[in-house]
Amino acid sequence: MSSTETAVKKRQLPFLEWGRHYTRATLSADLLAAVIVTIMLIPQSLAYAMLAGLPPEAGLYASIAPLLVYGVLGSSRVLAVGPVAVVSLMTATAIGDLAASGSAAYWSAAITLALLSGLVLLLMGVLRLGFLANFLSHPVISGFISASALLIAAGQLKTILGIDGSAHSFFGTVLLLLTHLPQTQLLSAAVGLGTAGFLWWGRKALKPLLVRHGASARAADVMVKATPVLAIVATTVATWYFGWHADGLKIVGDVPQGLPPFTLPSLDPALLQALLVPAMLISVVGFVESVSVGQTLAARRRERIEPDQELIALGASNLSAAFTAGLPVTGGFARSVVNFDAGAQTPAAGMFTAAGIALASLLLTPALHFLPQVTLAAAIIVAVLSLVDTGLFVRTWAYSRTDFAAMVSTVFATLSLGVEAGLITGVGVSLALFLYRSSRPHIAEVGLVAGTEHFRNVLRHPVLTSPRLLGLRVDESLYFANARSLEDCINAAVSAHPQLEHLVLMCSAVNSIDASALESLEAIEHRLREAGIRLHLSEVKGPVMDRLKNTDFIRQLSGQVFLSHYQAIDALAPELTQDGPQG
Amino acid sequence: MSSTETAVKKRQLPFLEWGRHYTRATLSADLLAAVIVTIMLIPQSLAYAMLAGLPPEAGLYASIAPLLVYGVLGSSRVLAVGPVAVVSLMTATAIGDLAASGSAAYWSAAITLALLSGLVLLLMGVLRLGFLANFLSHPVISGFISASALLIAAGQLKTILGIDGSAHSFFGTVLLLLTHLPQTQLLSAAVGLGTAGFLWWGRKALKPLLVRHGASARAADVMVKATPVLAIVATTVATWYFGWHADGLKIVGDVPQGLPPFTLPSLDPALLQALLVPAMLISVVGFVESVSVGQTLAARRRERIEPDQELIALGASNLSAAFTAGLPVTGGFARSVVNFDAGAQTPAAGMFTAAGIALASLLLTPALHFLPQVTLAAAIIVAVLSLVDTGLFVRTWAYSRTDFAAMVSTVFATLSLGVEAGLITGVGVSLALFLYRSSRPHIAEVGLVAGTEHFRNVLRHPVLTSPRLLGLRVDESLYFANARSLEDCINAAVSAHPQLEHLVLMCSAVNSIDASALESLEAIEHRLREAGIRLHLSEVKGPVMDRLKNTDFIRQLSGQVFLSHYQAIDALAPELTQDGPQG
Repeated sequence: MSSTETAVKKRQLPFLEWGRHYTRATLSADLLAAVIVTIMLIPQSLAYAMLAGLPPEAGLYASIAPLLVYGVLGSSRVLAVGPVAVVSLMTATAIGDLAASGSAAYWSAAITLALLSGLVLLLMGVLRLGFLANFLSHPVISGFISASALLIAAGQLKTILGIDGSAHSFFGTVLLLLTHLPQTQLLSAAVGLGTAGFLWWGRKALKPLLVRHGASARAADVMVKATPVLAIVATTVATWYFGWHADGLKIVGDVPQGLPPFTLPSLDPALLQALLVPAMLISVVGFVESVSVGQTLAARRRERIEPDQELIALGASNLSAAFTAGLPVTGGFARSVVNFDAGAQTPAAGMFTAAGIALASLLLTPALHFLPQVTLAAAIIVAVLSLVDTGLFVRTWAYSRTDFAAMVSTVFATLSLGVEAGLITGVGVSLALFLYRSSRPHIAEVGLVAGTEHFRNVLRHPVLTSPRLLGLRVDESLYFANARSLEDCINAAVSAHPQLEHLVLMCSAVNSIDASALESLEAIEHRLREAGIRLHLSEVKGPVMDRLKNTDFIRQLSGQVFLSHYQAIDALAPELTQDGPQG
Repeated sequence: MSSTETAVKKRQLPFLEWGRHYTRATLSADLLAAVIVTIMLIPQSLAYAMLAGLPPEAGLYASIAPLLVYGVLGSSRVLAVGPVAVVSLMTATAIGDLAASGSAAYWSAAITLALLSGLVLLLMGVLRLGFLANFLSHPVISGFISASALLIAAGQLKTILGIDGSAHSFFGTVLLLLTHLPQTQLLSAAVGLGTAGFLWWGRKALKPLLVRHGASARAADVMVKATPVLAIVATTVATWYFGWHADGLKIVGDVPQGLPPFTLPSLDPALLQALLVPAMLISVVGFVESVSVGQTLAARRRERIEPDQELIALGASNLSAAFTAGLPVTGGFARSVVNFDAGAQTPAAGMFTAAGIALASLLLTPALHFLPQVTLAAAIIVAVLSLVDTGLFVRTWAYSRTDFAAMVSTVFATLSLGVEAGLITGVGVSLALFLYRSSRPHIAEVGLVAGTEHFRNVLRHPVLTSPRLLGLRVDESLYFANARSLEDCINAAVSAHPQLEHLVLMCSAVNSIDASALESLEAIEHRLREAGIRLHLSEVKGPVMDRLKNTDFIRQLSGQVFLSHYQAIDALAPELTQDGPQG
């Protein structure tokens, strides 16, 4: 095998690389990380399955095979794959209208959704379409995740307060909560809010407290991660002991014991058609979330992840979820950070975690019978509220109104119309704003900075100009959307300079000129020629000039094409450059 | 009234301007142009009404009120408004599925479509949304018009050959024609093809012939424009005399005599909903066609047209068509050029033309009874085939593969899926290609051109560089779609230069940096800092720097921001600049 083939193979099967250097020290680091992540992942898996409208065991199943598959194919060493909050919410949205929550058809639809997501991700990976995810801008993603977190929290608050009824938006849910507040079930609310308060305290105040009492930072961290397990044990035992389920507190009930079953996803054409668009959106969101976590963590250790390889690995993970009664999965932020912080060295840590979860679903499920649903709801609320990033709204407003507008539209559409409409709105608005901006190019009149060869905007810097010569710097690539606006701008500039003989377009910021813009330049040249003004170009970039040189526009140009704007001024208005530059 | 108010009023009611300077010479020029355009417009109005699936009088009606209204509100002095080929085809497509051609419901739907188009255009005018038309690139418009012309010609050829049956695409129609060729009605084909041949000869060969026989160029022109009228008279008389209609040749039949009736458009909600999207597409296409004709002709006389005022004028014209039993209208290319060439000085010429058409619909309609439909079909074919611009395909291919791809997708989608899908595909493909290109920015390594202060691509020019300093010129605005690609590119460039100490990003072509790109720059800076490399910026534009200066990125930058790239090199790698520039 040649060394190129080996390199390609290593990129496609990353475990060939890390598996070769596996030592005893790596093993013990990976095992420790696996224990910590398993403790954290059991409650999360149960909770996110519930959020998706599925029985709790589906969450456990979705945290076994996908972790193993990702371990073999993934390019991140520490990413932990499984059900995550936003993707579970999108799953519930996608199948909520197709089947009744809790029914067999509902779970079957979730399995088909995982299959479709897997296929979409694999296809994107094979076609190297990872760049498509770049069209979700950072503000749109942040806005989407913050809004989804609010949506999720409001829905779970409904569970905690024991309020029945459903609403189709965040605003609807809030209204429902407010109008039905008197019907709150007190026991449910007490257990749920108590648990949420405990978990919140665990996140915010427990670690400093433990450290002050002499625990090491590492041990304190592990104990903080274990608070959800503690909450589960405490509320389960209390429910069993006090018989709260007889007083109306909803419990998880029977959870089948055993390893994930083998499932064949339904290929009903109507179902596939209904789920295709949601599967594409889930794939893109899952991919973006996973890649941003993976890149952040890889950069800390100067490693790299390959986006196209990630598509393959996540696609295969979702396929494995589809064949083992799971739901759509992706790389989760919190669990991957915990895995990283706990010292995981290789994807083997993820495989050990999968074994831990498998052990739990073999042995622990009977113990979950009396687990109150509100405990899981409380865990979800506390987890997702940490995803709401209010500081980012302030920073984005300060930096760019355009980005802020995209962010706010995403948030508002997600809260009022739901996750899918929110995401599509966000992408649509950010692209529309980008196109709008690029359709109105910034065009600056430039003059010579005395004693240099440098040119700057006449409105911002003291510069030398001549009434016979106008230098215009076009600050945008020229294409169909801004071609006409260039014509208008030049017409206006020319009519403001009655003595004009030469117009020099400084093209240092023009990265391309398309056929529409070329026609506009021809029209401009024609009009200037009739007015007795010569049109020149300067600083035309190599790739742009390669195209232009075979066109009638350049062949018939009344003026010249100068390599630098300084040469243009030197030739056309030598009175400005007679002192020469002084470095 | 202040002078500003007067100026605004003149812009909104342009006839206040030209009406004041109206002289006897202008009047006689306008009257002559009106006679010529009327002669040309009568057959065109009948033919385009037939193309839209409407009775011939609808075409006459649509050439009366709209011309008058445009004369008052339009900013072009010579544009002639009425039914045109592409808009009539789009009208037929929009209402073809809603009612049977020839029924009262069909005409009623056309009237409602004119109403909706009028309202859409007016709304765009009031909101100053004329710039939206810029998103139809020149190659997309040309491709769309060429493909529409082929669609129209194929449909009319079906009429000429007397072949029944319908097909939903150009390819389907061609297949239908080929498979049903044996069923051709010979009389119909003979009259139709004979007429088409005569009209074609009239366009191509008649004028030189007349000039050679001593006619003035002007007189020859008028006679060429009159050939369709001659064809109508000749075939009508022949049909009446030989009784061809008894042998199966389809004739126009009874055309009511009189001025356009007043109609109230139907406001049936289901109809409005079905026609809204087609009305928007018709508005945009009609506006683009009209404005490009108007601008071309205005430029020849150094006049200007106001796109937003054109929206108002075209909107009002369509509304007037809706209230006078017409169909959607716009400014036509051929008739406006004829009007211009015939010497029309003011919009009064259009008003006189309207009077001419009104006279025709009062007096001439009984004479149209024996007019064969194939004569109109032949006139349509000859008129639209001149819209197919094959040379543009060749020129676009030579200049830009991207533009060519947008053009060919438009043509292919129009021919296979129809006009609406074709237009949407064209806009979608051209925007997608633009976004794709801008998501992969061109980044060039630059070096100093010896003896100057100028920097160019190291791959294209002999330049000075240093192993300790890397200058990268980013040839694109930085935004969400290309932020990650910038990170990848810099990572690769840095790993190729092991001795690197300074990286200078030359930002002369960076016209904006959005929040996503700012985050990427922060990530890049962080990674370079850890690798012991300082990041500097040079030639940052004023508007970009205004934004950046209040960010953590600039406050924590390991390097400096230089006004010019030369200053950066001079400070960081003085060995390159020690000889100084020599102008």
